[in-house]
Amino acid sequence: MKGRKTDLGQAGCAVARSLDIIGDWWSLLIVRDALAGSQRFGQFQKNIGLAKNILSSRLKKLAHADIFTIEEDGGSPAVHRYVLTERGKRLAVVIIALWQWGEENCFGPGELEFGLADKTSGKMLAKLEIKTIDGKRISPVDLEIFLKPKASVI
Amino acid sequence: MKGRKTDLGQAGCAVARSLDIIGDWWSLLIVRDALAGSQRFGQFQKNIGLAKNILSSRLKKLAHADIFTIEEDGGSPAVHRYVLTERGKRLAVVIIALWQWGEENCFGPGELEFGLADKTSGKMLAKLEIKTIDGKRISPVDLEIFLKPKASVI
Repeated sequence: MKGRKTDLGQAGCAVARSLDIIGDWWSLLIVRDALAGSQRFGQFQKNIGLAKNILSSRLKKLAHADIFTIEEDGGSPAVHRYVLTERGKRLAVVIIALWQWGEENCFGPGELEFGLADKTSGKMLAKLEIKTIDGKRISPVDLEIFLKPKASVI
Repeated sequence: MKGRKTDLGQAGCAVARSLDIIGDWWSLLIVRDALAGSQRFGQFQKNIGLAKNILSSRLKKLAHADIFTIEEDGGSPAVHRYVLTERGKRLAVVIIALWQWGEENCFGPGELEFGLADKTSGKMLAKLEIKTIDGKRISPVDLEIFLKPKASVI
């Protein structure tokens, strides 16, 4: 990453360490596509419009980070499917947070014609809510965060 | 962005358009710091360990995208405070999603000693939950998303 002085992978901050693994925006767009069902190189390429060499290197990096497993497609070792691992699937909440922020802040009224929905039930997804551990909802406008020792929870 | 063939800012996908505005990982680490109270150039620089010229260009870009406003500090036009706008504060949910993913997937047991908490109440933040619009909780492991026309909600 340009300008990096610190190794984010070793950082004691969970945001920094996540960013180091996911790597760059393309990685998240690839995961977005996989959450919508894409598994083949050509599908990712068509949907994201990314140069083949860069897509290839990102998929390899994501497989190395255990976000995808690479499986043979139809018994041919030359054709692969890129399948999200559980660790990869858990990125859904990051994708949903980004979608919902963009929906609210980057489109004019009526401009975005689609919303995120759950394929199994067909229902739209609800807006993610920030809550404290005792269930109190906090508006992001009122939120200031701090790092609290986990031991203090006990 | 290296390898980009498409203009993400014009994309009809809320994830892509968000990523285009937030720009790169550094931008999110700057927002993370601001959510924890940082407002001054030196604070961001110390906490993130980013080269001054890059930090400066990212802060300008974020101010241009209405994530921060730049205010004079103590009446001196030479000293600035970078204050999150409402639009910027609403990125909290993205930061929390990244933190929680990292916490769960990038640290060994007991390695991460701190958790995210709300400064006002002092309480730890709960894990973000994915739900459909009728309140049903979905595990990310079971989730496949699709884009549904918003008109169909009515």
